[in-house]
Amino acid sequence: MEQGNKKYISKAVIRRLPRYFRYLRELLNNGIMRISSKELSQKMGLTASQIRQDLNCFGGFGQQGYGYNVKYLYGEISKILGVEKKYNAIIVGIGNLGKALINTPMFERRGITVSGLFDIDPETVGKTFGKHTVLHINDLKEFFEKNDVAIGIITVPRTEAASTAENLAALGVKGLWNFSNAEIMLENYPDVIIENVHLGDSLMALSYEISKNG
Amino acid sequence: MEQGNKKYISKAVIRRLPRYFRYLRELLNNGIMRISSKELSQKMGLTASQIRQDLNCFGGFGQQGYGYNVKYLYGEISKILGVEKKYNAIIVGIGNLGKALINTPMFERRGITVSGLFDIDPETVGKTFGKHTVLHINDLKEFFEKNDVAIGIITVPRTEAASTAENLAALGVKGLWNFSNAEIMLENYPDVIIENVHLGDSLMALSYEISKNG
Repeated sequence: MEQGNKKYISKAVIRRLPRYFRYLRELLNNGIMRISSKELSQKMGLTASQIRQDLNCFGGFGQQGYGYNVKYLYGEISKILGVEKKYNAIIVGIGNLGKALINTPMFERRGITVSGLFDIDPETVGKTFGKHTVLHINDLKEFFEKNDVAIGIITVPRTEAASTAENLAALGVKGLWNFSNAEIMLENYPDVIIENVHLGDSLMALSYEISKNG
Repeated sequence: MEQGNKKYISKAVIRRLPRYFRYLRELLNNGIMRISSKELSQKMGLTASQIRQDLNCFGGFGQQGYGYNVKYLYGEISKILGVEKKYNAIIVGIGNLGKALINTPMFERRGITVSGLFDIDPETVGKTFGKHTVLHINDLKEFFEKNDVAIGIITVPRTEAASTAENLAALGVKGLWNFSNAEIMLENYPDVIIENVHLGDSLMALSYEISKNG
């Protein structure tokens, strides 16, 4: 299936790409420059044919008998994932989860800069975490006028999630990363990408596997 | 595909079950007792035929023309997911993420009780969060002798993740919920279920979708 010049890439493949990205980075860090689909499959718990299929979606960088060039593959997957594009993000809701996120190296490695922190609690507003002082959410509008913010990270309580999302969408974010455990849907802003993180779903998958084990 | 008396349920279906669980709970909370596969599909962003297929895996609780009995379906999915089984969990690593997890209603709703908190930092050990006082990880062995702990939640720094996992597996946990962003593999404990939470993967999926939108 072709869409213009670009190959159509299924959602399932896209979901696996960040895993390839992580494994390939680990290989690079360990100085490994080539890897066969068989070795990669053992590391990732996928079949070799699945891996060949996935990577063929991006033009098949593998050479029969030589395996994959790790650095090249890492670069191509980075490009597909948009890692080379730089985005600013803000975190709204500086409770424990918000604070936990501020300190992770996760953002920088993926081309994302946390450029603002927002909360509503007078005890939290004005405090400094990392490079930033927490601003009041009433200052969001002014912040968006001065800064190019692409991503809104929502770590507010569940009850505040929908209004926070609406607010950020109206201010012009391109995407929301939502931790509130409320499934956010923005009917008035169909172009805003929403990534809902449901930790509870992951927990349930774990307890299912445990109960199956007896 | 049958395995003994039980129908084989694919991993992909299992991954979708917690979402059904969430949506059905929401319907119940709103007093909705019946729903058609068409309505459910619109809510969940899946096709109606996908939903019929998924739910048929568990014996097809739907009646042509009548839709699904929400309460019954919720109960059956709860059973399959093992929500009715009760498990104790401990959290190892009481930094911001550990603290954020303590306070969520996520556990109770899924039959899981957080029964112990552990850390290594002298400033944290002895402090009380919710119902529990943080114990030193040196006390893990004694704790496991006195308590039936099924799940270990790992929120330690990346560098400590592997040793923490080995430690918990040796003490007898049935499953690990790993937030450390290090992919944990336990070759010596093949029966321990590992659920690695990779928030970075979710973030990358978001930035991919944003970059595709242009």
